[in-house]
Amino acid sequence: MLRSSILFLLVLTLPHPGATKAPHASAGDSGRSTYDGPGYTTDGQLKFPEKYREWVFLSSGMDMSYNPAANAANHSTFDNVFVNPAAYQAFMETGKWPDRTTLVLEIRGAESNQSINKRGRTQSPELAGLEVHVKDKSLAGGWGFFEFDKGVSAKRIEQSASCYRCHGQHGAVDTTFVQFYPTLLGVAKTKGTLSAAYLKETSTTETDK
Amino acid sequence: MLRSSILFLLVLTLPHPGATKAPHASAGDSGRSTYDGPGYTTDGQLKFPEKYREWVFLSSGMDMSYNPAANAANHSTFDNVFVNPAAYQAFMETGKWPDRTTLVLEIRGAESNQSINKRGRTQSPELAGLEVHVKDKSLAGGWGFFEFDKGVSAKRIEQSASCYRCHGQHGAVDTTFVQFYPTLLGVAKTKGTLSAAYLKETSTTETDK
Repeated sequence: MLRSSILFLLVLTLPHPGATKAPHASAGDSGRSTYDGPGYTTDGQLKFPEKYREWVFLSSGMDMSYNPAANAANHSTFDNVFVNPAAYQAFMETGKWPDRTTLVLEIRGAESNQSINKRGRTQSPELAGLEVHVKDKSLAGGWGFFEFDKGVSAKRIEQSASCYRCHGQHGAVDTTFVQFYPTLLGVAKTKGTLSAAYLKETSTTETDK
Repeated sequence: MLRSSILFLLVLTLPHPGATKAPHASAGDSGRSTYDGPGYTTDGQLKFPEKYREWVFLSSGMDMSYNPAANAANHSTFDNVFVNPAAYQAFMETGKWPDRTTLVLEIRGAESNQSINKRGRTQSPELAGLEVHVKDKSLAGGWGFFEFDKGVSAKRIEQSASCYRCHGQHGAVDTTFVQFYPTLLGVAKTKGTLSAAYLKETSTTETDK
């Protein structure tokens, strides 16, 4: 039984009434070469990674949840995950995340009947939520979660929150859900960096079949 | 009535038995600064844009189709769209695509019950198809479609194919489906680059409501 909630999944089951106006990527330099890791305000809040839409896309899921009964049918969402390019390059070479890795989860409504699309779903122009997962050895525990609302900075979610526990228990690599990132899972397998917990979970699932 | 098929949509309704092994992004340089537009073989085939997974992600849809009855329930797919970074930057500044813009449509299976995800869908590690849409003034008509199978290069799809007609008739900007790209649609509106056909279609849809 999975009793822990998963921030990067659980969020999809919750409304985000205020989180609709986080800044988008702006024109100009790519941000690929200029991003040098997470920045913090003097009171420890994470600054918004403004150019995350120019980072490397890892995957998109629809209506993901650890709970089979979650989500009303009329509240359908996509979740897009991005990572800063330097961390992506490091992962492709080593199967591990370097310090200062920054993952962004962007949530958008899953719309139907837009323009000539008559079936399936497309993504809403409006944001429905935005969260950031940062690896930073200066943070207690080494990783931090931050949920952005309308602001340009966000307080760290407390370490007692279930997201930390669930990511730690079920993330395929170093508290991240690499099992859902198509181009990374094979790299982690090849490099031998899959977590013991994930390997055990996968092994158990295979045995059950 | 829409009688034209849409390559970037129609493809989702078709099986892609052989298109499972297109090269992935490789480690090393980001590709953002090194990609200098489409390359062709001596016989006019488009070379595979190997680092497209490091390009800028535009959006992901699920089970999109112009046909309300299309797609069997057991053949569910995601389509991820990427564009080369220089073209993205130009679009953010002007609302238009520059010459040598390269868009990649990547198709992956939509999987259920993977790892701890008990609801909704996640993307398969295996590719189910890959197509490229290139703006190139050296090509007759200015834009070309290419469908990759296992190879490292692909012949151009003939201009008589319905994909050209449908993109031309319904693409929100310059034969591309900007109406499905959340961070670009607003830019095109602001810059006044939405096509007359799209504006008319949108206006008609609004009136029908």
